Amino acid sequence: MPYAVIFVSKLKDPESSAYGAMAQKMEEFVKAQPGYLGIDSVRNAEGEGITVSYWDSLQAIEKWKADDRHLVAQQRGKDDWYAHYKIVVAQSIKQYAHGVAA
Amino acid sequence: MPYAVIFVSKLKDPESSAYGAMAQKMEEFVKAQPGYLGIDSVRNAEGEGITVSYWDSLQAIEKWKADDRHLVAQQRGKDDWYAHYKIVVAQSIKQYAHGVAA
Repeated sequence: MPYAVIFVSKLKDPESSAYGAMAQKMEEFVKAQPGYLGIDSVRNAEGEGITVSYWDSLQAIEKWKADDRHLVAQQRGKDDWYAHYKIVVAQSIKQYAHGVAA
Repeated sequence: MPYAVIFVSKLKDPESSAYGAMAQKMEEFVKAQPGYLGIDSVRNAEGEGITVSYWDSLQAIEKWKADDRHLVAQQRGKDDWYAHYKIVVAQSIKQYAHGVAA
């Protein structure tokens, strides 16, 4: 079964355009990673966000975590962008759906 | 390690007050469930939402899934409120955090 990385965060400044540009770049890079299966991401106007990325192995997750471009973003995230965040790495046990996402 | 239920959904009508009232009631009920550990929930103005609830066992998750009040909400969700949704049940492998949530 695949793995999920749950990233729950709060931005200091929900309007930060530097953050927006970085987030867009990271989403582009992550989609090209080996073992990447998909992503769900929502952020509200208060800057609270949840992003769940799906992966076929823990190795793929570790590789993306250690990616140079991602490390730079992680550091800026800690220093500048996030008031706080938490990350949960989990293994999928089952999933089901209703309707079809666009 | 605890379990996470990832609920990714899109509302047909992001402004639905009936949905808002139900969601508030469900959050109140879920917090009183045995085995409930916590919740993270974000919905944006377009009606896209991710809610992650955390549990100490699969049994606790199954019990909440089968709760009568929850079953009514699930049915109305399918019939009326959600354009689509998906649910992933996963077992936490590791977690880490930066900063402290309010």
